[in-house]
Amino acid sequence: MDGLPSLNRLIRQLQRLPYLASKNVYRVSQYFLELSTAQREEFCRILLESCQSLRPCPICCAWSEVGSGCLFCDASTRDRSIICVVESWYDLQAIEHTGVYKGLYHVLGGVLSPLDGIGPNELLLDKLQSRVGSTVKEVVLALNQTPESDATAAFIARLLKVSDVLVTCLARGLPVGASLEYSDRLTLNKALLERRMF
Amino acid sequence: MDGLPSLNRLIRQLQRLPYLASKNVYRVSQYFLELSTAQREEFCRILLESCQSLRPCPICCAWSEVGSGCLFCDASTRDRSIICVVESWYDLQAIEHTGVYKGLYHVLGGVLSPLDGIGPNELLLDKLQSRVGSTVKEVVLALNQTPESDATAAFIARLLKVSDVLVTCLARGLPVGASLEYSDRLTLNKALLERRMF
Repeated sequence: MDGLPSLNRLIRQLQRLPYLASKNVYRVSQYFLELSTAQREEFCRILLESCQSLRPCPICCAWSEVGSGCLFCDASTRDRSIICVVESWYDLQAIEHTGVYKGLYHVLGGVLSPLDGIGPNELLLDKLQSRVGSTVKEVVLALNQTPESDATAAFIARLLKVSDVLVTCLARGLPVGASLEYSDRLTLNKALLERRMF
Repeated sequence: MDGLPSLNRLIRQLQRLPYLASKNVYRVSQYFLELSTAQREEFCRILLESCQSLRPCPICCAWSEVGSGCLFCDASTRDRSIICVVESWYDLQAIEHTGVYKGLYHVLGGVLSPLDGIGPNELLLDKLQSRVGSTVKEVVLALNQTPESDATAAFIARLLKVSDVLVTCLARGLPVGASLEYSDRLTLNKALLERRMF
């Protein structure tokens, strides 16, 4: 808006946030404008302090508190013979919420995307390869079901072929509660092709 | 997530932002975590500074820069005989973008909502009433087409009845480019009832 440079600056800054619809940027800036100065300072203080006190674990790349060990790599209760490869820490969190998995993790931080300049080096795949030693028996590729993720999974599987480790991936098929009638053709196709013993 | 208090604090802080879907809060926190410390500090600095240098105009409640006059109330080019009442400054912006309206504004900052404790005093309706003096000939109620906004418009219209001012509201009917077949019944109903001379 002409004549309001401060408002424009605020909006431009908020427009950088991902996953915030362009129309909602105005409403979020209104939210910040309506806060008291103390509340805004509190918001910024918590934002800066929290981000400052988190660091990626040097082994698995999951977020851990600065000054304390990794929740997974440094825990004695985790099964060290299995590594679950995920794209992000929120995928990790989704798997943790199931309560079934008790092994270690490896957070890629993305998927291979040559057009965006994300190759094997950007995903630190050599780090994963170096972790697959004598103790690790299985690597579970828990990636999303997208073409990019599939390509990344195939790349990792080929990378780990040289080491004597079992590479598995998540089961594909009908989700719990699904009815065949409303399932998409591709999912049903996979569910048929990858059918299992009852 | 247990064991990561800083991450939890960051997420809780971001959850306060309106219009950010709960799933996307994780992605926005990932965005902040991936920024460098300098970039995060820049974000906070701009946020604090911009909000600090904006204040609501004491007359029309639209945002204006601290130290400079209101874009509308203090502009000599605006028509002082007409006031457009809007709910928020982004509604104001939408009207400004049409380029048709050259009068003054009055930003309510919301609509009447007794259940949320928003009454006539919270919307500063007495301020609007005091503005409607001898120079103002027309008040345009440019509120949204929701039940709450309709109630607010009716309230304002009754409030201004005592003063000798023309109270108008936006035209209702089919939007530009609409086809009758796909219009909802209520809109078509209004378009029929409020038909105009061709």
